[in-house]
This record gives sequence, C-alpha cells and structure tokens, in this order.
Amino acid sequence: MKTIETIRWDDDTSSIILIDQTRLPLSYRVVRCRSVDRLITAIRRLEVRGAPALGVAGAYGVALAARTVREKDFHRYLEKVETAALAVAHARPTAVNLSWGVQRVLSHVYRSDSIAEAHHLSLKEAIRIADEDARSCHAIGDHGSALIGDGSTVLTHCNAGALACREWGTALGIIRSAVESGKEVRVIACETRPLLQGARLTAWELKRDNIEVTVIPDSAAAHLMRRGEIDCVVVGADRITHDAVFNKIGTYMHAVCARAHSLPFYVAAPLSTFDPVHSGSEIVIEERDRDEVAFYGGYATVPEGVPVRNPAFDTTPLDLVSAIVTESGILQPPLDWDYIAQTRRVI
Amino acid sequence: MKTIETIRWDDDTSSIILIDQTRLPLSYRVVRCRSVDRLITAIRRLEVRGAPALGVAGAYGVALAARTVREKDFHRYLEKVETAALAVAHARPTAVNLSWGVQRVLSHVYRSDSIAEAHHLSLKEAIRIADEDARSCHAIGDHGSALIGDGSTVLTHCNAGALACREWGTALGIIRSAVESGKEVRVIACETRPLLQGARLTAWELKRDNIEVTVIPDSAAAHLMRRGEIDCVVVGADRITHDAVFNKIGTYMHAVCARAHSLPFYVAAPLSTFDPVHSGSEIVIEERDRDEVAFYGGYATVPEGVPVRNPAFDTTPLDLVSAIVTESGILQPPLDWDYIAQTRRVI
Repeated sequence: MKTIETIRWDDDTSSIILIDQTRLPLSYRVVRCRSVDRLITAIRRLEVRGAPALGVAGAYGVALAARTVREKDFHRYLEKVETAALAVAHARPTAVNLSWGVQRVLSHVYRSDSIAEAHHLSLKEAIRIADEDARSCHAIGDHGSALIGDGSTVLTHCNAGALACREWGTALGIIRSAVESGKEVRVIACETRPLLQGARLTAWELKRDNIEVTVIPDSAAAHLMRRGEIDCVVVGADRITHDAVFNKIGTYMHAVCARAHSLPFYVAAPLSTFDPVHSGSEIVIEERDRDEVAFYGGYATVPEGVPVRNPAFDTTPLDLVSAIVTESGILQPPLDWDYIAQTRRVI
Repeated sequence: MKTIETIRWDDDTSSIILIDQTRLPLSYRVVRCRSVDRLITAIRRLEVRGAPALGVAGAYGVALAARTVREKDFHRYLEKVETAALAVAHARPTAVNLSWGVQRVLSHVYRSDSIAEAHHLSLKEAIRIADEDARSCHAIGDHGSALIGDGSTVLTHCNAGALACREWGTALGIIRSAVESGKEVRVIACETRPLLQGARLTAWELKRDNIEVTVIPDSAAAHLMRRGEIDCVVVGADRITHDAVFNKIGTYMHAVCARAHSLPFYVAAPLSTFDPVHSGSEIVIEERDRDEVAFYGGYATVPEGVPVRNPAFDTTPLDLVSAIVTESGILQPPLDWDYIAQTRRVI
C-alpha cells in the first residue's frame, strides 16, 4: 500500500500541509495553512474532511493558533489562543472529533506556564494525536479484518479512507488490512452525492493501492443487495452517541436496506468519534449550501428558484448496526459507555 | 396548470416534434424527427423518455416509418416498415410501453391493403394512442388524488410527469389532480442520479405549475422519512410484471425505506405499462454508459480506469407496493391479471 499523508505539520514553516481533497481525482495538490483563518476555510470548503482527519486538523489548528497569536501578556495570550481554537472547533458542527482534537490540545495550552511552553506542549500533543490516529486506523483495520470474508464484496459510502484520517483509514483501513492479510476483497463505492467523495476519493485511493473498486450511484446499492451482489456494508462515522451513528447522508438508507437483506452493517471509528455526553437529538446536522446540489461544473442542475435540502449527515439508530470496530476492538451494541468514556481520553 | 406537450405529430412536415429533455432546465428546445433513425437517436439519448411517452414515441415512430419507407411493392413495403418499427421497439429494452406502442400501430399497418391505407391507418392509431395517453394520465390523476391527504408531503423519484407522458403525468398527474381539487401538496423530488431527471425535469414542471417542490439528493430520502417529513411515496413505472415493478434505479430503496417507516408506497402507471407475459427475471435491465456517472459537465468525477455500474432501472417486488393507480382505478396487489390483460388492449 502506498502511504497517503492527508494532513501533517511542517516544522520548517510552522504550518499545516494538507491534500486538497476538493481537486481529486482531477489533480493532486497540497494546501499550506499558515494561519488559523486559512485552516478554517480549508475545513469549511472540505479541502480537509473526514472525522478522524478533522480531529488531527483541530489539534494542529490549536498548535498553529499558539504560534500565530501575537500577544506578550500571557493571560491575554491564553484568551486569544482559546478564541482561535474555538473558532476552529466550530468550523463544522457535526463531527465530534474536530472539537475533541481542539479540546485535547487546548488543555495542554492551559497547562503551560509561558508562551514558549504553550508552543512546545501544544505541538507535542497535536503530533501525538496525529500519531495516535495513524495507529488507531491500523488497529481498526486489524480488528475489522476478521469481519471480512475472503472473496467478499464490501459496500462503502463516502470516504472513510486514508484521506479521512492521517493515513490508512477506518472503513477502508479494514479493507486494506483484509487485503494485506491475503484476502480477496472487492469494493463497491457509492458515489456519495452531492460532493462525490466516494467516486472521487474512495475510488482514487483504492485504485492507487490496486484494490478492486467499482463506483455506483448511491441509489443502486439496494438493487445490488437484492441481487445478492453485496456481502456486507462498512462505513465510517462522524459521531457516535448513545443512540445513533452520525455519518454522511445516505448511511441510514444503506443501514435500513442492509437490514432488509439480512446483511451485516459495520461502522469503523476510533474512540475519539464517540460522544458520551449528548444524545442524537441534541446534535446539529449541518445543512450545507444549495449550490452543492444545484450546480455541477458550473451548470445548473436544479431550476432557478427551486429550493434544495442538503443535509450533510444522517443518523442511524444503533439497533441497525451489527458492530462498531474501534482501535480497542469490536464493540457490539448495546455499548458499554463507562468503558468507552474511560478509554476515550477526552482531556 | 400550463400544458406541456411532450411529444406530438406535425402534419405539415410529417414529422415528430418532441421537447429535448436533455437540455432542461437550462434551455427549452424542441427536436424535430423526420426520420426513424433520428427518432431512435432521440430515444437512446433520452431526448424523449418516460414509459408512457415512449409508448407514444413508438406509435408515432411506426407512422413515421410508414411514411418514410421508399418501396413501391406492397409486400416488400410491409417488410421494411416492420424492420424499421422493430428497430424503434428495441431502442431501449426495459420500458414495455415502447414495444407496446410499436406493436399496436404495426398491427394497423398489417391490416392495410395499400401503402396509402397504411399511411392513413398508422397515423390514426398513433394519434389515438397519444390521445388515450393524455386521457389515461388525467384518469390516473383523478383516481390517485383520493390517496393524497390535504397538507401532505409526497416524495417522488425521477420524472413521472408531463414530460414522461404526452401531458399531465402519472405520479405527477396524481399530484396535479390533488392540487387542482384544492388540496395543499408539497413535493420532495429526489434528484435521481445519474441523469438528474428529478432535479431537472420534475422540479421544472412543478415550478411551472406553482406546485411547491424541494429537491434532495436521492440518499436523503430515508433521512427525511425518519424525521417524519414524508407522508407517502408516489412513483411511475416502466414495466409491471406479475412479481415486480420496474422503475428508475433508486425506486427499490425508496420502497424498502417506505416500508421500514410504515409509509404508503404508490405506483402510478397506465395499463400499457403492465406486462402480463413476462416475469421480472426475464426482463433485461438496461446498463447505460459509464460516462453518465463518471463525468459531469465535462469534468471527470470517477478516476480514470475505475469501472462504474450504471443500471438504469431496478425492480421492486409487488409486496412492497401499497397500490397501483391506473386509468381504470386503483389496484391493490395481488393483481387480477385476467382483468388487466383484457383491459390492456395489447393488439
């Protein structure tokens, strides 16, 4: 497998370097974020996306804030870093990992006694989060590989791959680990309207690793299930509450259809994705811009004046989930939240 | 409601005039088919599409063939008209109405005693089919209107509207009739990947009639059902066999999800859509070109070399269908096929 480093810290220039995911598969370019504002733009534009990668972006964002805030008074410095960090945390509302990464690094800023120490501790913790994410994905892959039969066809939605993490991936990490262990695995990638992360990103990274992948319109998944062409569904998650999995819009319909066809429905997510505090109904589902649905390549696909609903995520009740694969092992609903909260290392 | 005449015969020029549906909503243009080859191109390119409209196109196609075949020997003339007619019938494989329209007019060509009589009888029968289609749609609308509660939100998929018929529509005919009878109806139109007939055509024709319509990605339908924002689903059909409804890819997932949310799932189709002869497994599901999914507006959305599955239709078992609305009334599965075969007037 070829390494994809989705997001990294560049020490020479004190900036965050990330793969611009809006341009794939047409062109491979990196974006350099030298300011918190540029990072927030990158998050909002989905130049960087995917729950675990957003956790890393949030973490590096605080390290960047610690370095770019210009303020000599330490108390006022802390206030300004906090303001910048919270702006990063609020750049997108649904994925819990973003605010989790921000909070984890921010807690190290608070523990500092000087600006120099804040520089040092914030970056150290952010790099630790990035490294942990990479290790988590490999562990998720190793645990989840056991769920994938040799010769299987796996349906996935959106991109829960290397591009959604620091590397390797969650859902696609499981597929990579299964392939690496010698299993033959075919992937059906749902294109994932409106922004086509499945067609553009999942297909791109699996092809790069010579893993067999076929793209379908999202609406063809149930049809292939009915024809017996799918063995299981594996997706990522943006947030897992006591009652539901938040993930890319379309995940819920796949879960309903998988259940109707008695197919296993697996979620792959690091423990940083779990939210022990909120219930599903308290979480805001981001409604994104009309034009993401209504235009493509400059062409209007929806008549002028006709409204569009563009929810970025949906919620899948846990009783439709066969198992959740984490870096600590495979969890089966109902979940042991005490264990999760302890293992999750919130701050 | 403003009349949309999707397809018509032009007597002055002996040609078929149809609205070019590939260009909507960006521009409204008509295509004139002076030859059978041009009509076949129009059918393959989906300049004209929708099962009932294809029935009318097939019918006019035979009338056009009867006029454009250059042959003085009556026996050889009949052979050549038949060859041209079958080419029209085979332009697309799944919608039964196309071959039904062709066969009905062809039977009148066979009954002719001269070329002049074949000209006359074929056009007369084709016009009768077009007029019947318009009457059928209004009858479907009137029957189906009873199923739509005042204040309802109706989910529909693809375009089973005026643009899929000669006028008025089947699924949208029901909505038009419900609105005309004074009910308040909101429509959620699934955009319908890959060719976006829902976003482009359903939204266009409903907006034109001031019927409230909102476009969503196909994958958001189940999410809205879960939130209680949908009251029922109404779709058209391309073929109804003893065991299944063939309709645009995505219909089946809506049916599965409607059942999971205890929502009624209605199919609207004239009797010409029923196929009393074949079972579902005997019918070819058209697989369309990769580029329909892999490109948009000239941009590649799927990486080069990655295969695509692009089935144009799926099959919904009749036990997921609450009712089928026809011009003769509302049918509830299990269907009375003797009645249907009698009423259908095959030839």
